Amino acid sequence: MSAHSDSRFAAKIYGDRLERAVDLIRAAHLDALLITPGPDLRYLIGSTADTIERLTCLLIPADGATPSVVLPKLELASLAGSAADELGLSVLDWVDGTDPYGIVRSALHAGSRVAVTESMPALHLLPLAEQFSGLPVSATPVLRELRMIKDEAEIAALRRAGSAIDRVQARVPDFLRVGRTEAEVGADIEAAIVEEGHSEVAFVIVGSGPHGADPHHRVSDRVLEVGDVVVIDIGGPVDPGYYSDTTRTYVLGEPSARIAAQYAELERAQAASVAAVRPGVTAESVDAAARNPLTEAGFGSAFIHRTGHGIGLSAHEEPYITAGNELILRPGMAFSIEPGIYFRGEWGARIEDIVVVTEDGCEPLNLRPHGLTVL
Amino acid sequence: MSAHSDSRFAAKIYGDRLERAVDLIRAAHLDALLITPGPDLRYLIGSTADTIERLTCLLIPADGATPSVVLPKLELASLAGSAADELGLSVLDWVDGTDPYGIVRSALHAGSRVAVTESMPALHLLPLAEQFSGLPVSATPVLRELRMIKDEAEIAALRRAGSAIDRVQARVPDFLRVGRTEAEVGADIEAAIVEEGHSEVAFVIVGSGPHGADPHHRVSDRVLEVGDVVVIDIGGPVDPGYYSDTTRTYVLGEPSARIAAQYAELERAQAASVAAVRPGVTAESVDAAARNPLTEAGFGSAFIHRTGHGIGLSAHEEPYITAGNELILRPGMAFSIEPGIYFRGEWGARIEDIVVVTEDGCEPLNLRPHGLTVL
Repeated sequence: MSAHSDSRFAAKIYGDRLERAVDLIRAAHLDALLITPGPDLRYLIGSTADTIERLTCLLIPADGATPSVVLPKLELASLAGSAADELGLSVLDWVDGTDPYGIVRSALHAGSRVAVTESMPALHLLPLAEQFSGLPVSATPVLRELRMIKDEAEIAALRRAGSAIDRVQARVPDFLRVGRTEAEVGADIEAAIVEEGHSEVAFVIVGSGPHGADPHHRVSDRVLEVGDVVVIDIGGPVDPGYYSDTTRTYVLGEPSARIAAQYAELERAQAASVAAVRPGVTAESVDAAARNPLTEAGFGSAFIHRTGHGIGLSAHEEPYITAGNELILRPGMAFSIEPGIYFRGEWGARIEDIVVVTEDGCEPLNLRPHGLTVL
Repeated sequence: MSAHSDSRFAAKIYGDRLERAVDLIRAAHLDALLITPGPDLRYLIGSTADTIERLTCLLIPADGATPSVVLPKLELASLAGSAADELGLSVLDWVDGTDPYGIVRSALHAGSRVAVTESMPALHLLPLAEQFSGLPVSATPVLRELRMIKDEAEIAALRRAGSAIDRVQARVPDFLRVGRTEAEVGADIEAAIVEEGHSEVAFVIVGSGPHGADPHHRVSDRVLEVGDVVVIDIGGPVDPGYYSDTTRTYVLGEPSARIAAQYAELERAQAASVAAVRPGVTAESVDAAARNPLTEAGFGSAFIHRTGHGIGLSAHEEPYITAGNELILRPGMAFSIEPGIYFRGEWGARIEDIVVVTEDGCEPLNLRPHGLTVL
């Protein structure tokens, strides 16, 4: 095993990405991309550097010159795990008391039109903007053309993530017991997420009873009761950084006829949305495929969010599966299909799978049963 | 105990902070502050909301109008733990498919001059900047006047954090054993950080042997050997969000005479710097108090970073204790004093305490012995 086998792919993959990024920068009439730590930096050179108050920034010039990394001398070691060395990137280090933003300007032409990674904090963006004429633009319209289309190695990583989080969902029935709190269940799930192969926990939602009606609830000290419907939405990254994200809904005891019937409509809507995914259709059509049957069943207003979000090195990224997004789906795109129904003060349910668009449909990466699991 | 006792202070504290922020905004000739999730938001309204792709933003107008929170309807519950309700803030919620940046603009006057929190990502900063004339400025010069001066409740929280991390350092000798890896030691320390009262682990550096010469090393699979000097730099937040951060240096077996002598110089330099802290002196003079004795001892070039950083709701914040910073210290400022010496490829050492400026000197919050601990 080589040193980079866990935290990144082989250097050639990053070299190809940088070349394609340069082509896209040119096509967008930009002079350079400026990428501080975050998922774009990991995507482009395999670096897991953290964002800190001292500037670390990858510069990719559109003119084909060698990209360079501006970083604090103190952080030189943070490059060691990345592909920077094998790619032959220039390293421009700086020490406390010197001006790193001036180094960025000096490395580019005057008047350069630059695009910045969307995770760049104002701390760095504002002083960088002062170095150039006019406000920078977002690098996302350029980079999403790369990041949205997953290659085979990325899809393999997403498959591993999907299997790992499915193994956690398979253990959830062991954790969900009347009399325990959401927080206690959540702690067990967090341990299981790491045990099943994730490098860390990204999020754990245990939405029991009325808390299930809040899509972004996390956990609380609420004690589970007989009859509770419980939404379990969980995920985290697996090396080299690709996220899992899946939701299943459980019920503690037999559900009422009304709950069972409404859940059955949700299950049909989710399956219809998955079935609608194929190359050539729009993102919004996949949203509509989940939303229309719920509206026809009379509770479309209970589905209060978009159908899904892209996933990869970020837990949420493009493409967003939402009304108004006319983006055409292409093979290699990966996103969630997660319709939900929410009845404020009462209960909620959600079913979420990650899918990857294939040549003629899609491959779901979460394979646990979709029904309301009665415990 | 009230519901907010762990995650935030009483609402009145935030009300006072908002009032003082308005005075400072006016004095800086700004029209409004825009604060997305992060330490500034927690400081101002006690909200622990996460940054996500959907805009959540606190607007504080300079004209004294009620501040408002723009946030996704989905995230309304995230306000529940904050002081927003008790403070009577306006809530402007939005749903997917509408334009949250336009809501921000509508809530302010045309041509407003706005300042943004330095943690705001480009994702939100770029579309917000388009709503206003000219590039926003950083809110930090305004907010640091508040955040730099800790009140009694904040100092009490920093004391709790200091005691908690001191208890972890007291257990480090149990973890450091010849034949174990840095990563194994680090895992034990991570568990201890949580066991001793932190809400999570922020960072763990186990820099053994040559790794001690890299100030920003984390952990590795290097196996501890007889004679290794080991730098242990650890910290994390305690409720309601205040950070600990302390470093001690250990040696596995008796150190050589040279190492003992050089470490003794470092210990004197650290003590001299702590002794130099009092109201009325500059940040750079405290840096010099650590740096000069090391330079006089002949290895000033081995001290390759600034002497310290402020600490509070961020692990690193103002004031920075560095050459060139003429900021005058005032009572209530809290920061690290952490000189180190680094001999590339050989060994390194660092001693770090958090101190709070008092009326006539400073109160150190880390009380473990400063000597090289021989194990």
